[in-house]
Amino acid sequence: MSHSIPHSTIIKVRGYHCDFYGHVNNARYLEMLEEARWQYLEAGLDLSYWKDRGLGFVVVSVTINFLRPASPGIDLEITSETTKLEGRTGVIHQEVINRQSGKTVANADVTFAVIDLETGRAKTMEGEVLAGFEKMRAANNQNDGS
Amino acid sequence: MSHSIPHSTIIKVRGYHCDFYGHVNNARYLEMLEEARWQYLEAGLDLSYWKDRGLGFVVVSVTINFLRPASPGIDLEITSETTKLEGRTGVIHQEVINRQSGKTVANADVTFAVIDLETGRAKTMEGEVLAGFEKMRAANNQNDGS
Amino acid sequence: MSHSIPHSTIIKVRGYHCDFYGHVNNARYLEMLEEARWQYLEAGLDLSYWKDRGLGFVVVSVTINFLRPASPGIDLEITSETTKLEGRTGVIHQEVINRQSGKTVANADVTFAVIDLETGRAKTMEGEVLAGFEKMRAANNQNDGS
Amino acid sequence: MSHSIPHSTIIKVRGYHCDFYGHVNNARYLEMLEEARWQYLEAGLDLSYWKDRGLGFVVVSVTINFLRPASPGIDLEITSETTKLEGRTGVIHQEVINRQSGKTVANADVTFAVIDLETGRAKTMEGEVLAGFEKMRAANNQNDGS
Repeated sequence: MSHSIPHSTIIKVRGYHCDFYGHVNNARYLEMLEEARWQYLEAGLDLSYWKDRGLGFVVVSVTINFLRPASPGIDLEITSETTKLEGRTGVIHQEVINRQSGKTVANADVTFAVIDLETGRAKTMEGEVLAGFEKMRAANNQNDGS
Repeated sequence: MSHSIPHSTIIKVRGYHCDFYGHVNNARYLEMLEEARWQYLEAGLDLSYWKDRGLGFVVVSVTINFLRPASPGIDLEITSETTKLEGRTGVIHQEVINRQSGKTVANADVTFAVIDLETGRAKTMEGEVLAGFEKMRAANNQNDGS
Repeated sequence: MSHSIPHSTIIKVRGYHCDFYGHVNNARYLEMLEEARWQYLEAGLDLSYWKDRGLGFVVVSVTINFLRPASPGIDLEITSETTKLEGRTGVIHQEVINRQSGKTVANADVTFAVIDLETGRAKTMEGEVLAGFEKMRAANNQNDGS
Repeated sequence: MSHSIPHSTIIKVRGYHCDFYGHVNNARYLEMLEEARWQYLEAGLDLSYWKDRGLGFVVVSVTINFLRPASPGIDLEITSETTKLEGRTGVIHQEVINRQSGKTVANADVTFAVIDLETGRAKTMEGEVLAGFEKMRAANNQNDGS
């Protein structure tokens, strides 16, 4: 999976994203990461691919590191990249970067499963599931002009 | 509807309720009002009363006035009282009071409809709907020890 | 104020915007309206105009009508237009439109005051405050290509 | 740190906590965990202890596992327990338990630092910082009636 170009989403920090301490609240980062993952999935592959096959995504765990604060007016760039597809889970690595300073504000590894929406059971990363991710990677690279 | 004692809910302001300006964010008040209405409905009458009759609540409009800021550590008391039941809508009046200062932080009129969950149609405020509200008022007054 | 073209912001509905009922939650609309107002203020006039004069915006009240539900995948267009500037308050009218159906999902009148950030006092809608809004309207119309 | 009794917070799931999929949204769990940590800190030790010493808490990272879905009406019990204090960071372990089923819905390890609010620097877990945690543990155990 080494040649994938990370997908990129921009979100401008607003006052309502922040908490009493004047910086983006920890919980809000999880919403921003979710927004970026939706855009990543849509950009790489029409969501109907998954829907047509009766497949859905479930987040199994998140590990997030908060490295620097972010204040209103900052443009956050959120990169999303699938870094692992193995057994019944995959991992999307996401970086949240302050575009003004170029520094990483937060980063996260989001472990997910692809489930059969009818049975609720996780699928192994093979066959049509793996094919879906291969198509996503190809489409993302094309979108990025490489 | 003059003898109803308003239902009361307490929510302590936390850092995550606030925004960049250090005060509870406008959108968050709507969540707090929703929380208070659920507690009001539950306290006055088991929610199964409505569910058994296939009835649900839909918020039609909200008018909210922001009078004073509220900061972390403040206990907010949210009172809820049905002030109108007429035609196809009712109004719940809610006050958000700073318990330390005794002053009103915000107040709102929430207009709702009771709908038949199967047809999606609003019911008129009569029969079992009106009976439900009468039971709620009676139960609330009893809970408040009067 | 009759020749102003409303500013427009697009927000795509995601699963996290919705609540248990599968539609955008009432409180979330207030965040979407706030996002649209920031974009409206930025598009029409650099926010430094207000900042340089030590002026800030405070929302005094919101009246919002919920007309139709909105589900994930829908693009919401939020229009923002200043419809009143009188005495110590102004009103921004906002419409939330489902771009797929063309129908209005919600609309709101947001009453605000412009305050002197040092004294916390509301300014009357005249002089530099009024000039700021005139510049915003001119800039918005230009952006919209008229 | 083996004899500490975990602090416990109860939050009832409401419709607004959930997302399109009908279950508590991932980001919302981080707010619930934050609420539980505030109650934990307050119950164990008046927050003025930390404030008087010019100390604040900063969350450095969160690892959260989502094990089961939670729907409206469920009472979630969130336990909070300091499981590590070493060098410049500590770890609070939190479990989110469905009180109706007794099953764990989610669990998390929250790594934090105690910082000197004036310098912004992390303190080592010794002296007054360690003493604060010892007091918290003693107070929590007493509150729990043991």
